[in-house]
Amino acid sequence: MISAGTTLRTIRERKPLVHQITNYVVMNETANATLAIGALPVMAHAGEEVEEMARIASALVLNIGTLSEHWVEAMLLAGGAASARQIPVVLDPVGAGATAYRTRTARRILDVVDVTVLRGNAGEVATLVGAAAEVRGVESMGTGIAAADLAREAARRLGVIASVTGPVDHVSDGERVLSVANGDAMLATVTGTGCMSSALTGCFLAVKPEEPLESAAEALAAFGVAAEDAAAGAAGPGTFHARLYDALYALDPATLDSRTHIEER
Amino acid sequence: MISAGTTLRTIRERKPLVHQITNYVVMNETANATLAIGALPVMAHAGEEVEEMARIASALVLNIGTLSEHWVEAMLLAGGAASARQIPVVLDPVGAGATAYRTRTARRILDVVDVTVLRGNAGEVATLVGAAAEVRGVESMGTGIAAADLAREAARRLGVIASVTGPVDHVSDGERVLSVANGDAMLATVTGTGCMSSALTGCFLAVKPEEPLESAAEALAAFGVAAEDAAAGAAGPGTFHARLYDALYALDPATLDSRTHIEER
Amino acid sequence: MISAGTTLRTIRERKPLVHQITNYVVMNETANATLAIGALPVMAHAGEEVEEMARIASALVLNIGTLSEHWVEAMLLAGGAASARQIPVVLDPVGAGATAYRTRTARRILDVVDVTVLRGNAGEVATLVGAAAEVRGVESMGTGIAAADLAREAARRLGVIASVTGPVDHVSDGERVLSVANGDAMLATVTGTGCMSSALTGCFLAVKPEEPLESAAEALAAFGVAAEDAAAGAAGPGTFHARLYDALYALDPATLDSRTHIEER
Repeated sequence: MISAGTTLRTIRERKPLVHQITNYVVMNETANATLAIGALPVMAHAGEEVEEMARIASALVLNIGTLSEHWVEAMLLAGGAASARQIPVVLDPVGAGATAYRTRTARRILDVVDVTVLRGNAGEVATLVGAAAEVRGVESMGTGIAAADLAREAARRLGVIASVTGPVDHVSDGERVLSVANGDAMLATVTGTGCMSSALTGCFLAVKPEEPLESAAEALAAFGVAAEDAAAGAAGPGTFHARLYDALYALDPATLDSRTHIEER
Repeated sequence: MISAGTTLRTIRERKPLVHQITNYVVMNETANATLAIGALPVMAHAGEEVEEMARIASALVLNIGTLSEHWVEAMLLAGGAASARQIPVVLDPVGAGATAYRTRTARRILDVVDVTVLRGNAGEVATLVGAAAEVRGVESMGTGIAAADLAREAARRLGVIASVTGPVDHVSDGERVLSVANGDAMLATVTGTGCMSSALTGCFLAVKPEEPLESAAEALAAFGVAAEDAAAGAAGPGTFHARLYDALYALDPATLDSRTHIEER
Repeated sequence: MISAGTTLRTIRERKPLVHQITNYVVMNETANATLAIGALPVMAHAGEEVEEMARIASALVLNIGTLSEHWVEAMLLAGGAASARQIPVVLDPVGAGATAYRTRTARRILDVVDVTVLRGNAGEVATLVGAAAEVRGVESMGTGIAAADLAREAARRLGVIASVTGPVDHVSDGERVLSVANGDAMLATVTGTGCMSSALTGCFLAVKPEEPLESAAEALAAFGVAAEDAAAGAAGPGTFHARLYDALYALDPATLDSRTHIEER
């Protein structure tokens, strides 16, 4: 069943711990988004502790935005611990397609770790399924494939829930495709909003791991509604950014479902 | 003598340099809090320079929020240089109790470095004195000991000023216990506010090192008053966060003491 | 020709990719400033990918604010790739003069990499030309040389465009000196605003590399105008910081030149 409001209510009741191994640029931002939605973030990347931390968490989020070897090894260790406990794992393949190292690392994590949801932009996801794509830095410049088809194809080939974000988001398990038409263009003016959507995907999966397709779509819809609220009255990217946490925090479980635009296609 | 206003005035006059070796999540935030209160922050963690940097600083703040071996070694080096010069050292044992690595590292720093103030939440501090505690990620989920007793006990056993923050903060030198009843519940909705309180503790100690019990309590009281000001009119965690720097910057030395609630118990 | 408005318009049309290897404290901030002005930031520091990333970028910004050996090596690799492609390189020698390691590293980068613009405060730049200077942490406490002379001298001796920021900024190619009298005192209350000015210098150079003296001055003028706008109505450093991104985003190419105070001296 799809109900972002119900899942949000559960997050706020259970306050799940979401372990994040993410990039330097957005650590503060994804931690604050996690707190604002009602979950508890923890950042830990040392080989000495990532397995232990992943074992007490309800979800693990891996993000390769500023990767280096020690961090990749930590991601593999944490991913292994998460897989062993069967807690959901979200992978954000930031910049896959921009450099060979990023593409290779994202593939390596997909090979070794039981990734539940792959959350990326169209260029990153297309790169990982071997389709034509242009990725400039960490921005998708377009692909040769329709977004819904890309999500379905990525889910099938990679054995994950593929969550492809863009003006309209598409989430697929390889059969079904859910489209999410919430959000605001201001999201593109602030760095790390994609990473935040991955962190929130981890929060929703943490309390509803048995329906990952639905959880992943609900997370994007909730984030999109918050972005709509934040944009209303924002004077630009800086005030939008501050208001985004206000809006995530203020999301009302009782009315959220009336505002989400999730459709099965 | 306890006077947060007097110490704040001294900070603004002297602009002490506060060397911080802290976690990736909050570096920007603790640097901005340090600037807003009127001191100068510097972040440096390379083995090649931490001793030299600690030697020109008026206080050192160590924070294990995203630790790894190189960083721990740098903390020990900087701590050694600070101890040799007898400048105050603040330790924030982020997540002690959550993983064995964090607990072990916090103990190792306490063993090797002459820590002046240990600033943590109840779960972290209880872990370090061997009391029952639950730490979930970096959040304290409760301990079996009253906060004032915990602060006194930690100070005695660990040979530090123990600064235990929570809804009411308790700071002790092992004999006296000062309670600080300033602050706002919004502080828990933004990541790194505990780390900020450690950084500000460093700022207050920097100019009043001879009375570390009082300095540590004054820092928490000043931060709490700023949080009260920031919360008034904030629409949620994002605008509260931005307003928190405004409020720290606007703290008035002349009226601060009339607003702090520091009591000896 | 000097026209910050014209160059800004070009940035927004071309959206150049600006590769930044910068410090942990300000990564989010410089990325957001880059996005707000209209360019695309990418942060990448792994030896495995920095050359490839620098090869697809239109400018490279190196910043030693939280340096360590791996990062310095990555800066040299990326700098080599940038030099080979003759894309502009900006160096921000954060804290040169505060520790020997920082001074030595800044000199090493200047020796090995074809640095286009050196953007620093007076103390940092004076240190690098061997003049008397006091640097406290990352703050310049004064030098024994007038700012315009310092900029000219640094440009001559180091073979760069020297961009020395302060209450009034001075940019020189060793012959000409451009002074920029935009900005606001609030800039000093937020950490990383110097780093942001270096990132924006990279954005302006990316689209007008053939006139680096002019580009560097235009970047500082545009940033200064945005700071003036952000300060009007800000309640302190926190709201000023949020409004700074709003103001960068809202800069109007059509009217910018009427507000910049760039003079040849």
